[in-house]
Amino acid sequence: MDEFKIVEIKEDILSRNNEQAKDIRREMREKKIFFLNVMSSPGSGKTTLITEIINGLKNDYKIGIIEADLDSAVDAETIAKTGVKVVQIHTLGACHITCQMSYESLSALGTDGLDVVILENIGNLVCPAEFDTGANKNLVLLSVPEGDDKPLKYPLMFEVASVVAITKTDVGKIFDFSPERAVENIHKRNPDVPVFITSAKLKQGVDEVVNYLRCEIEKVKRG
Amino acid sequence: MDEFKIVEIKEDILSRNNEQAKDIRREMREKKIFFLNVMSSPGSGKTTLITEIINGLKNDYKIGIIEADLDSAVDAETIAKTGVKVVQIHTLGACHITCQMSYESLSALGTDGLDVVILENIGNLVCPAEFDTGANKNLVLLSVPEGDDKPLKYPLMFEVASVVAITKTDVGKIFDFSPERAVENIHKRNPDVPVFITSAKLKQGVDEVVNYLRCEIEKVKRG
Repeated sequence: MDEFKIVEIKEDILSRNNEQAKDIRREMREKKIFFLNVMSSPGSGKTTLITEIINGLKNDYKIGIIEADLDSAVDAETIAKTGVKVVQIHTLGACHITCQMSYESLSALGTDGLDVVILENIGNLVCPAEFDTGANKNLVLLSVPEGDDKPLKYPLMFEVASVVAITKTDVGKIFDFSPERAVENIHKRNPDVPVFITSAKLKQGVDEVVNYLRCEIEKVKRG
Repeated sequence: MDEFKIVEIKEDILSRNNEQAKDIRREMREKKIFFLNVMSSPGSGKTTLITEIINGLKNDYKIGIIEADLDSAVDAETIAKTGVKVVQIHTLGACHITCQMSYESLSALGTDGLDVVILENIGNLVCPAEFDTGANKNLVLLSVPEGDDKPLKYPLMFEVASVVAITKTDVGKIFDFSPERAVENIHKRNPDVPVFITSAKLKQGVDEVVNYLRCEIEKVKRG
């Protein structure tokens, strides 16, 4: 009986969150802003790939970054070096970003005049998948050291992905990681999702991710 | 107002969980079973280190393993090869193990005659830290590819650790990971926690972890 109560509360929270996500998407559509939510395990290379994406886009688009962490400002300091606008959000222990946090972060960032907003979500392959942030697209990272079996073990995250980047492929041989098996496992969860094989260190695959994002940004601009 | 309601519910859940943790610990103490909860990010090497621990202990102790995952039986299949008793638990989306799940898993495993139970928690550096599983000790892993800054970004996990193993140190140079900085960051969160520097691949540091656990198992046996 208690368990049922908990489920109902969770459903209430999720359904309210989904409503708010629609509001955010409507507002962003009106402002013609492309909003990207980046999710992965801790240490999969979100900040590094976001830095590469910023460098690939910043000459053509005005970009704002939201860095979400439980604590510390490590990532915001790294991102600030690219010269784009960045806010650091502390969730004070919360394991994911809700739409309410997303909304407050967008206000704190100030979105007027921006073309692109990128949210670096909490490093967590479970909970952030449940909470729509109001973003246009979810970019999910899977790093080579984590192993090619992770899409089997963390299904929802790969189901909600709009696009997947396999990262740190420069160490693929050391870790006995098969990109083919990884892609196969990702497609078991999400048959049509585009998957990019990347190494930020070797600058491989990053241009392809940037080009994919350019197309999505232009779609939003065209309305 | 809504936020306050949510917090109260969470506190209720946590306080009920803590009560149940005491019951589990009492029962395990009576049975003289050492119960270890292993936590980390996805892909940090929990299953690999647990396999090494089993191999280091199984000639002297009867061991049972609880594998918790959202989905799949990948890890249980790996562990089963060591010849010890193992149960696979599916949390159906839940991001952590509560005491209720811990209790049901222990029943499913069957603890009579065991000396050691090891729970491999969900790969998640956030939520499992909040939920006492009733274990005697929390072993937390930090893998080199994740980066030496993670204790700053995921404070609670390192605060609740009884012991930390830095894993995959064979790739330390590739990833620009400083064990000294990692230990320093861990000790900022938890000043006296023992930290072992390990590489399962090179069989380094694993004996030290096994010896640490032997001492803890013997403490429980002595009562």
